[in-house]
Amino acid sequence: MARVRMRLSYDGGSYAGWQRQENARSVQQTVEEALAKLTGERVSITGASRTDAGVHALGQAAHFDTASRVPPERFSFALNAMLPADIRVLTSGQASPTFHARYHALGKTYRYCIDNAPVACVLVRHARAHVPHRLDDARMREALLPVLGMHDFTGLCASGSVIKDKVRTVSVASLERDGDGLTLTISGDGFLYNMVRIIAGTLIDVGRGKLAPDALKRAIENKNRRLAGATAPAHGLCLMKVEYEGWPSSG
Amino acid sequence: MARVRMRLSYDGGSYAGWQRQENARSVQQTVEEALAKLTGERVSITGASRTDAGVHALGQAAHFDTASRVPPERFSFALNAMLPADIRVLTSGQASPTFHARYHALGKTYRYCIDNAPVACVLVRHARAHVPHRLDDARMREALLPVLGMHDFTGLCASGSVIKDKVRTVSVASLERDGDGLTLTISGDGFLYNMVRIIAGTLIDVGRGKLAPDALKRAIENKNRRLAGATAPAHGLCLMKVEYEGWPSSG
Repeated sequence: MARVRMRLSYDGGSYAGWQRQENARSVQQTVEEALAKLTGERVSITGASRTDAGVHALGQAAHFDTASRVPPERFSFALNAMLPADIRVLTSGQASPTFHARYHALGKTYRYCIDNAPVACVLVRHARAHVPHRLDDARMREALLPVLGMHDFTGLCASGSVIKDKVRTVSVASLERDGDGLTLTISGDGFLYNMVRIIAGTLIDVGRGKLAPDALKRAIENKNRRLAGATAPAHGLCLMKVEYEGWPSSG
Repeated sequence: MARVRMRLSYDGGSYAGWQRQENARSVQQTVEEALAKLTGERVSITGASRTDAGVHALGQAAHFDTASRVPPERFSFALNAMLPADIRVLTSGQASPTFHARYHALGKTYRYCIDNAPVACVLVRHARAHVPHRLDDARMREALLPVLGMHDFTGLCASGSVIKDKVRTVSVASLERDGDGLTLTISGDGFLYNMVRIIAGTLIDVGRGKLAPDALKRAIENKNRRLAGATAPAHGLCLMKVEYEGWPSSG
């Protein structure tokens, strides 16, 4: 039995999210079915992040156990030959028998992309949320700053979350404009349910002038989700990177 | 009766090209049907470029005549409410009664995009041709240079073309790399059938080392299509801009 780790990417547009579920096609199920065909085994894979329906990934991480004789580093190539074009395995390799893609993740980076053109660009419409109203990105950057550091993020978490400890540390929070494109990049040791989409949605409301620049600051301080803005649509979000001790994100 | 001109964009992935045809859905037909719904007229539109199946546009130009009372500049908004999300009208406005989108075009700019990552990026797979082999872009730039200027481009035109005069002037031909992305930009007073895709395909073969850097030069000089490389796939190509006297491409 060998434990295999892999980095993978997907266009989340056709999937009901990462996690296997009844009556809807998930990324996990699709990869597990490809692995079953390849190995003849019934393989269960564990992802670092259970991305939501419609959310993309360019750097998801996962592990699985197999008794197959396929060399661990060949799984990426072999799986890509069987997977649909909207899921690609970037790399695969041998992991230690105790490696766990979810529990051992030290940090994650997400990107949220906005198309701020008056008319949506047809070629990026599946990967950027379209906001036709001109956004004031200086104002958005001011609003974003208080997110940095260690906070109880209860106010930026979707209600109904069962997680008790809502303290997380955000190490990177930046917003860049390139023409009509706005890209929010956010790294941290972990994220609560919908947290990045709530931050993005609040920034959009701040950029349009619907919310004051201290909206995120106040939502965090008061642990009050209602002080933040709307949850931005799933298709603008992309899991870019998951970091581990001893496993470079390119490897 | 008023003549209306417009700039439009489309993701060509779901269409059998610009031009209306039997038994296959075209961009022209889709826009004409939206116009018919909007105006109650049977409207025929003329595009600047008859882009092929799968080819995208971010700056197609077109004109049509209408007796409708919709103000010319409102057609963009009104049509976008009726069109599918993969076709967007960027701007519309009144044209002179003699304006012709095809005959009056002074120049066009095309872009050809290549994804040169070892594994195809899932988020751009519909708009960039994937070439996993590492491409030598300095060598490709050397090969591209002879395309500039006025030439008889018979050697870079798909066979079977009925056009007699194959002399065209290319004013811009550049290749830029941004990480794994390669972008060929080419402007000229006109392009022959498949010309940009043949140039792109030849550059890819040069970049891989399958053809010598003088391949494009020799194909042009000898008016011999066989000296050039393969025709690159349609989905990497995008019509970026059509230029006219007195109509700025943003207007």
